[in-house]
Amino acid sequence: MEKVFRDPIHGYIYIQDQIILDLINTKEFQRLRRIKQLGTTSFTFHGAEHSRFGHCLGVYEITRQICDQFQRNYPKEIYGKDGWDDSERLVTLCAALLHDIGHGAYSHTFEHLFDTNHEQIGIEIILSPTTEIHQVLTQVSPDFPEKVAAVIAKKYPNPQVVQMISSQADADRMDYLRRDAYYTGVEYGNYDLTRMLRVMRPYAKGICFKEEGMHAIEDYIVSRYQMFMQVYFHPVSRGMEVILQRLLERARDLYDQDSHYFKQHCELLVPFFSQRYTLEDYLALTDDVLLTYFQLWTKAKDPILSDLACRFINRKPFKSIPLPSQLDQRKLRGAKVILQKIGYNPTYYSGLNDASDLPYDIYRSRIHHPRTQIELMRHDGSFFELSTKSEIVKALSGETIIDRRFYFPREMVKPTQTLEQNSEILRFQQWIQQTLDRNVTKL
Amino acid sequence: MEKVFRDPIHGYIYIQDQIILDLINTKEFQRLRRIKQLGTTSFTFHGAEHSRFGHCLGVYEITRQICDQFQRNYPKEIYGKDGWDDSERLVTLCAALLHDIGHGAYSHTFEHLFDTNHEQIGIEIILSPTTEIHQVLTQVSPDFPEKVAAVIAKKYPNPQVVQMISSQADADRMDYLRRDAYYTGVEYGNYDLTRMLRVMRPYAKGICFKEEGMHAIEDYIVSRYQMFMQVYFHPVSRGMEVILQRLLERARDLYDQDSHYFKQHCELLVPFFSQRYTLEDYLALTDDVLLTYFQLWTKAKDPILSDLACRFINRKPFKSIPLPSQLDQRKLRGAKVILQKIGYNPTYYSGLNDASDLPYDIYRSRIHHPRTQIELMRHDGSFFELSTKSEIVKALSGETIIDRRFYFPREMVKPTQTLEQNSEILRFQQWIQQTLDRNVTKL
Amino acid sequence: MEKVFRDPIHGYIYIQDQIILDLINTKEFQRLRRIKQLGTTSFTFHGAEHSRFGHCLGVYEITRQICDQFQRNYPKEIYGKDGWDDSERLVTLCAALLHDIGHGAYSHTFEHLFDTNHEQIGIEIILSPTTEIHQVLTQVSPDFPEKVAAVIAKKYPNPQVVQMISSQADADRMDYLRRDAYYTGVEYGNYDLTRMLRVMRPYAKGICFKEEGMHAIEDYIVSRYQMFMQVYFHPVSRGMEVILQRLLERARDLYDQDSHYFKQHCELLVPFFSQRYTLEDYLALTDDVLLTYFQLWTKAKDPILSDLACRFINRKPFKSIPLPSQLDQRKLRGAKVILQKIGYNPTYYSGLNDASDLPYDIYRSRIHHPRTQIELMRHDGSFFELSTKSEIVKALSGETIIDRRFYFPREMVKPTQTLEQNSEILRFQQWIQQTLDRNVTKL
Amino acid sequence: MEKVFRDPIHGYIYIQDQIILDLINTKEFQRLRRIKQLGTTSFTFHGAEHSRFGHCLGVYEITRQICDQFQRNYPKEIYGKDGWDDSERLVTLCAALLHDIGHGAYSHTFEHLFDTNHEQIGIEIILSPTTEIHQVLTQVSPDFPEKVAAVIAKKYPNPQVVQMISSQADADRMDYLRRDAYYTGVEYGNYDLTRMLRVMRPYAKGICFKEEGMHAIEDYIVSRYQMFMQVYFHPVSRGMEVILQRLLERARDLYDQDSHYFKQHCELLVPFFSQRYTLEDYLALTDDVLLTYFQLWTKAKDPILSDLACRFINRKPFKSIPLPSQLDQRKLRGAKVILQKIGYNPTYYSGLNDASDLPYDIYRSRIHHPRTQIELMRHDGSFFELSTKSEIVKALSGETIIDRRFYFPREMVKPTQTLEQNSEILRFQQWIQQTLDRNVTKL
Repeated sequence: MEKVFRDPIHGYIYIQDQIILDLINTKEFQRLRRIKQLGTTSFTFHGAEHSRFGHCLGVYEITRQICDQFQRNYPKEIYGKDGWDDSERLVTLCAALLHDIGHGAYSHTFEHLFDTNHEQIGIEIILSPTTEIHQVLTQVSPDFPEKVAAVIAKKYPNPQVVQMISSQADADRMDYLRRDAYYTGVEYGNYDLTRMLRVMRPYAKGICFKEEGMHAIEDYIVSRYQMFMQVYFHPVSRGMEVILQRLLERARDLYDQDSHYFKQHCELLVPFFSQRYTLEDYLALTDDVLLTYFQLWTKAKDPILSDLACRFINRKPFKSIPLPSQLDQRKLRGAKVILQKIGYNPTYYSGLNDASDLPYDIYRSRIHHPRTQIELMRHDGSFFELSTKSEIVKALSGETIIDRRFYFPREMVKPTQTLEQNSEILRFQQWIQQTLDRNVTKL
Repeated sequence: MEKVFRDPIHGYIYIQDQIILDLINTKEFQRLRRIKQLGTTSFTFHGAEHSRFGHCLGVYEITRQICDQFQRNYPKEIYGKDGWDDSERLVTLCAALLHDIGHGAYSHTFEHLFDTNHEQIGIEIILSPTTEIHQVLTQVSPDFPEKVAAVIAKKYPNPQVVQMISSQADADRMDYLRRDAYYTGVEYGNYDLTRMLRVMRPYAKGICFKEEGMHAIEDYIVSRYQMFMQVYFHPVSRGMEVILQRLLERARDLYDQDSHYFKQHCELLVPFFSQRYTLEDYLALTDDVLLTYFQLWTKAKDPILSDLACRFINRKPFKSIPLPSQLDQRKLRGAKVILQKIGYNPTYYSGLNDASDLPYDIYRSRIHHPRTQIELMRHDGSFFELSTKSEIVKALSGETIIDRRFYFPREMVKPTQTLEQNSEILRFQQWIQQTLDRNVTKL
Repeated sequence: MEKVFRDPIHGYIYIQDQIILDLINTKEFQRLRRIKQLGTTSFTFHGAEHSRFGHCLGVYEITRQICDQFQRNYPKEIYGKDGWDDSERLVTLCAALLHDIGHGAYSHTFEHLFDTNHEQIGIEIILSPTTEIHQVLTQVSPDFPEKVAAVIAKKYPNPQVVQMISSQADADRMDYLRRDAYYTGVEYGNYDLTRMLRVMRPYAKGICFKEEGMHAIEDYIVSRYQMFMQVYFHPVSRGMEVILQRLLERARDLYDQDSHYFKQHCELLVPFFSQRYTLEDYLALTDDVLLTYFQLWTKAKDPILSDLACRFINRKPFKSIPLPSQLDQRKLRGAKVILQKIGYNPTYYSGLNDASDLPYDIYRSRIHHPRTQIELMRHDGSFFELSTKSEIVKALSGETIIDRRFYFPREMVKPTQTLEQNSEILRFQQWIQQTLDRNVTKL
Repeated sequence: MEKVFRDPIHGYIYIQDQIILDLINTKEFQRLRRIKQLGTTSFTFHGAEHSRFGHCLGVYEITRQICDQFQRNYPKEIYGKDGWDDSERLVTLCAALLHDIGHGAYSHTFEHLFDTNHEQIGIEIILSPTTEIHQVLTQVSPDFPEKVAAVIAKKYPNPQVVQMISSQADADRMDYLRRDAYYTGVEYGNYDLTRMLRVMRPYAKGICFKEEGMHAIEDYIVSRYQMFMQVYFHPVSRGMEVILQRLLERARDLYDQDSHYFKQHCELLVPFFSQRYTLEDYLALTDDVLLTYFQLWTKAKDPILSDLACRFINRKPFKSIPLPSQLDQRKLRGAKVILQKIGYNPTYYSGLNDASDLPYDIYRSRIHHPRTQIELMRHDGSFFELSTKSEIVKALSGETIIDRRFYFPREMVKPTQTLEQNSEILRFQQWIQQTLDRNVTKL
């Protein structure tokens, strides 16, 4: 008998296979409850405190609905190689559910600093006999974990299955846009999901859309673009991200000098500082652990560590100015010199942060990870690529958007310092005026 | 004490002036309840049966909210000529409420056939001493009707007032996008109204937006574009519109031959057939009257009149094919000849229908009705025009979108005729295949 | 291939049988577009201009979802007589779609005056060989129209089918609550439909609910109660309804004296005035026809007919006072005498209007139309009736709520008359003060 | 210039006073981001991961809207002692914002175990010169913290101010119902907030409602009742709460035997184990800290501590059976004996959990904390109490609802044990059958 989870985005998540329920009940999957979906974004949009757990259920649910629609309207038995093979259903659903299983706390920042990779770790979780996930999956068949991993790694032979999970219009994106819009309270992410699912169809090379659905997909591409511009790129969230990055860097640097303090007070981070972490170490490091350590560090003796920890815990984001994306980094030296004079170590008290996204692209055979372009099928069975008909998508296509910003302590734009400092702050503000990218909107 | 109307779009409509309440209670305003906002669109989107009454209240409410925000944040007393003069409030609210007062039944089609003009008639309603609207307005001051009319005619001296009601980002559009999306049940019209109202501000030359609001406005432009593509241009609604047009043409043509029938059975239309209508005649001709006449006509002796009336009343839209927008009209002759052979008078049983919209444009001084371009204000007080920064808006800017379609009886694509007819129908379908614009999506 | 209708309440209406699509395309069903779902309610809640067409589609869609859920979770093959027999699907869906097919313009008022009955007429439409509805239904089998009619008449042998369409928790109510709430913009009708559909299940005697769904059903009962109290009983809408009633009565009375005027100007009403109407006459009388006639009557010579028509067309509702429900009608004589003195014929210018509803009741074998009580099934298969466990439902159970009001011209509470009249108006207001039911909330 | 926070419930939170912004930016207020609003509820409703931060902003926003409405419609200048004194605005807003400032991690469970009290601590935070909150408040005036504290402690002289924050229809409840409904995804909490705010008005003794709003308030009372029944009382969330309680008890008991382990691994809890905590200790103990400790404890040597920690971290709730509320606790002994035999220490592996709520009550002068009953004002200025007119509220009034459940390891209802254990499990299940309260719905 089917089981349901109440979900604010999809109404209900329908679980119809015992194997899916067992996967959700593993400790590796439950761990996703302790990792925020949007990292530091909730410092800007306070409603967005949701975890990766709900998103993973949502991707599963959208995938389930696609499978149902395909089986109802385009079964392999009738459509042949352009149809959907329902024996792929379970592997597809498992891959949908597990596609983000390798994510850790503040992945974006953390991966950059400690050279971890959530996709590789995800595969490892699925394949390692030590995990509960693996043990559930092997109940289906001994090679089932490999198959699920292959879908996530985009190496599975059936392109329909792969593209349902990973493409420019996949269940992953479809869920996170709606979900993140819901929790932040913005409306940009509200494209027409119902219609998009309806106009989707399988074909021999993967998944395409019926031509009458073109505007629904266009709308979705714009929604995604708007969410990046308005939510994911928000300068204030990134001002918290830069602090997070500097704080972890400072801790790592201090560990090299005095590992004792960290071994005593933040044992779960030590494997990463010492670059010898196991899968188990990785799985233990959830948001709450980092937050607890940061709170302890607010009392640390090292003034930089404690100051940065306070800024993170008490939400005092760095301020920023937008920079031209091609900026010569040497131009930032002047600013760093001023910071140093005032007493801020620029290594930890400044930062260049690039937010970038390529909203849509056609397939480019020569590049490293070419994208699967969005194909639309005409009534006569012929195809056209989305950006050849949509002026809007064409305008967003192939152009990586980069928002480059220089971050520094907020005190630099507030006149609350001693007189001597004030003259330096004045110079800093003059530097800002000269450097500011007049082409970018937000300060 | 304020009075409220419950509204599904805005929660409540707040009425704070007796004059506004009196205007709503006039018979000319109540008449808007009997005119559908979207004409034949409810034949495609069955939920969209709302009348112009609610939309007019909605435009009023958005305008009221803008006035409040302006007065709270940008009062003239502080901002001088870049500020809002709250003594303009009442004239602005009245103009907002009355901007569509001149609309009649199926305006789009009707105006085309009978050479009426809802904007001119709107002005006339406001200025004519015979109307209740005029009588209410003169209570404010003898020249108040003139002032309200001037706002609607875009001749009022204060550009802030004019642009709030009529510009590319005015209260009219803001309301209808949300309202039409709500009633049709599509999501395209759901741009971020709350944020858009928040980033709007007055300045010396009218109304502009704060630069951080750029993406909210971009979103709104795309929403509007999508509503045109997906809802307002829908080929099936237009298939009903063509029938409506042909039906009224047939009646007018018959009137010239036999006015007796029409004088007896549809007296309220006679002034339009005979091209001698008064304001009172115009105000009497609401949707219900036309629908009643059409229903009577289903029993008319003239086979074309009764057949077209049946098609309209029982919703049997003409079918269509998309055509290249530059199509030489002579190419349609072949189709008309076939129609004639089968027994359809092509004058009444075919039609070319162009749906067109210019989603956004910059100000062009040389054209007849130049648009007020959307200006954004930077933090330093300088301005830039929307499409110079938004790639999406640039892609939609200055290009009129035309969807040209050729309409014909749905029987032409259904094999339900006699054998002889079938061979002609086959030829018709071949003609379709040759003519079809492969660049346009929907059949 | 399935076809969909976009619907603001359910997202999409899914049509999966040709017979359903054909029914929708009949002229009798299309006619529902010209009959408002809520009659005069849109005079109070301006958003509620929706027609019966959308509601009928909605009842169909909810029924379709129930059938799907039953077939998925409780098929007859497994559950025997407690299971769902999917061969009943089509007759159930047709009955759901057609359950309101007999409704006419302003049914409530009209039926009362002209002794029509929308349920009987609905059956007639289904059974009469002259209708398109009948012709479509007979394509299934010769006795299919009879079967569909039996479901609507609650005489069909399978109680599951009957209760899905007609019971205290049926698809009809489930749709109209959500739909009317959506269009009016109130929130009372927003019970948890998704959960309610989920906890519903078939059993030998009809349809019941799983015990864990008790609060969802309780919520639905309260929602329905609130919609009656706040929307359907609204005194202002009823003030328009009383005018409508008096207006039609006046016309009917005048017809007896001077049938010529009516034969000339409102031929479609004549069969009802003369009490000799056919099914065809009934089907022609939609909202638009009545509205057109009322508009013509605003110019009638009879002062009462024209005045009442103006009040209806221009929305000038009668005012009212609440009365104790057991009020002796003789007490109203005093008021009528005053009205007469001022110059209002009390036959047409006053009215007693009772709004009543029984929110919930248990099955009572002795009464004429006993209700099917709502049963909940425990995990062990035993049953209990809803009001035995829910204190809230018990509080609403078995008690018919009556809101009795006395209506009169609004001028009676506005001091805009001549001096002489004013003294009578003063007496009228004193009468109001004495008569007013202090136990009822709204004036 | 006003500042806004985007909020999914209210659209925007409007900050119009620097003092409010400064309060939000204090570390004590930012700390609320690390405390979930609904504790263990997100284990059942995965969407409900929101923190107390957003709720506190929401209560502030509703209060702000009430103040605005009162000042617009019922200013003291006109209404005298029945009017609103706008000089109370700032103290009211601060109290609204800070009413929950004393909450800690899993308050419900924690307070019970460690004898803390979030209301007292809230007052302390406001009054203690060591906190940033206090320092901000004293900027208004030296006695301002006392005034804010008095409002929260319900000792402030102006009853309108007190009742806006604390009564049976206060801003606190109005926000949490909507917010918790939004995040859980259920619809029960969606009463008509807009209308309720509209019908609210001040009077000499506090806050009342206009009589025409009675059904809106009734709806709100039912909403609240439903949220308790369906969400807050959910047996599965309480199954996690019982584990949490037993886990902390086990740790505390172990601390008495071996404090070393805890001093080393969970220093922030030690002050509570040793019953010598300061305000600073309390403020450091947020959800993330407890979660981190629980994760560390999964590796603890003590088998009970590690097992319970695993159950909590990996979401393995205790199962339960409903019990009659008057149950003699001795009846549970049998169950505990069986648990002991199987090897579960019943002190830590079973639990009685009462969820109780009094949905509404009239004022009762003799009881300890009498409630402020909800008064409705008639048009003539007289009053009546809500439950005298509303049958629904009367049905819920004065009756405390208690859902008493007995919790035990889920293994007791799953046959996955050794044979010997199985016989005991069988006996346990027999015991369940005998004890089960047949009057309560959920297992």
